[in-house]
Amino acid sequence: MTAPRRRGRPGHDQDAVLTAAVRLFNERGYDATSMYDIAVSLGITKSSVYHHISGKEQLLQMAMDQALDGLFEAADEVRDLELPALDRLERLIQLCVIVLAERFEFVTVLLRVRGNTEVEQHALARRREFDAIVTDLVKQAQAEGGVRPDVDPATAARLLLGMVNSLTEWYKPRHGGAEAMAGAVTTIAFEGLRL
Amino acid sequence: MTAPRRRGRPGHDQDAVLTAAVRLFNERGYDATSMYDIAVSLGITKSSVYHHISGKEQLLQMAMDQALDGLFEAADEVRDLELPALDRLERLIQLCVIVLAERFEFVTVLLRVRGNTEVEQHALARRREFDAIVTDLVKQAQAEGGVRPDVDPATAARLLLGMVNSLTEWYKPRHGGAEAMAGAVTTIAFEGLRL
Repeated sequence: MTAPRRRGRPGHDQDAVLTAAVRLFNERGYDATSMYDIAVSLGITKSSVYHHISGKEQLLQMAMDQALDGLFEAADEVRDLELPALDRLERLIQLCVIVLAERFEFVTVLLRVRGNTEVEQHALARRREFDAIVTDLVKQAQAEGGVRPDVDPATAARLLLGMVNSLTEWYKPRHGGAEAMAGAVTTIAFEGLRL
Repeated sequence: MTAPRRRGRPGHDQDAVLTAAVRLFNERGYDATSMYDIAVSLGITKSSVYHHISGKEQLLQMAMDQALDGLFEAADEVRDLELPALDRLERLIQLCVIVLAERFEFVTVLLRVRGNTEVEQHALARRREFDAIVTDLVKQAQAEGGVRPDVDPATAARLLLGMVNSLTEWYKPRHGGAEAMAGAVTTIAFEGLRL
């Protein structure tokens, strides 16, 4: 999207289209949202939308990339920490909550995708790749004696991420900031509820 | 559905219609599934389907009731136990996993509903009622000194159920039986991953 803006419509650039699209995808579902709906919600014409975007599938891909890029950046950040695997795992789970809070609508889009198209399949493959990073951290933490040995690493990774991802179903900023929510998740998952 | 079966089609009764419908709802989505699709998947005519069922919304309601009734039966079972609140809470979470495993397709339908109709709104209200039961158990367990005081009961309840519900996204019987999976969930949530 390096073409000059011929129409001079500030605010209706690619980001604004993506934001509007993602909101509609989450409200009505991806299939039920048309490019026309996206244009109407921005108060512009459909051809103005196509000036910025090739089509609905590009918007879906951009939305999922926003979510996935955030998660992989968190994994990169954690990999470079000189800390025991348990602490890197805990930090990664905290960062997942923060990415989810900051990119809430994008993560929500990602988590509802079922793999019906090639673009969706590719996103699911990246999600599995991320799951594998978390699973490896659990394994390392077990090998270092930081995590209890009686849980299967892949199961633990899925349940940890399942707890994080459940936030897309109910989290509102009024429930507490992202850092506080990240703290609640890691307290329950790493320390356990039992006093 | 107390009308006599005039056509004598064993296996194509209401339960069979419900099972077929729920499978399609989860594969394609509720909106994308027609009564015709359900009939085709059973190899019967659409009018035979209407012999058993008033329409798609009845099927949705029946599916969600299967899930919700299972959860409320679990809550009833737990309420009558003469045990500390912590143990009742832990038992209820185990039972939630077992209900989810046994009624997998029904729970999956329930969790995808967004409240677009009155029937869906009613199901969401029952879900909130169930969440409140879990929240109350966390509160009681905190008051008895069984659960750490530094977690908000409603947040803890949502995260516990979020972890359980995430199973609809990935659980397959090959990952272990329902009892084993229930054990993994409660070990992580109550004892914590940290060794």
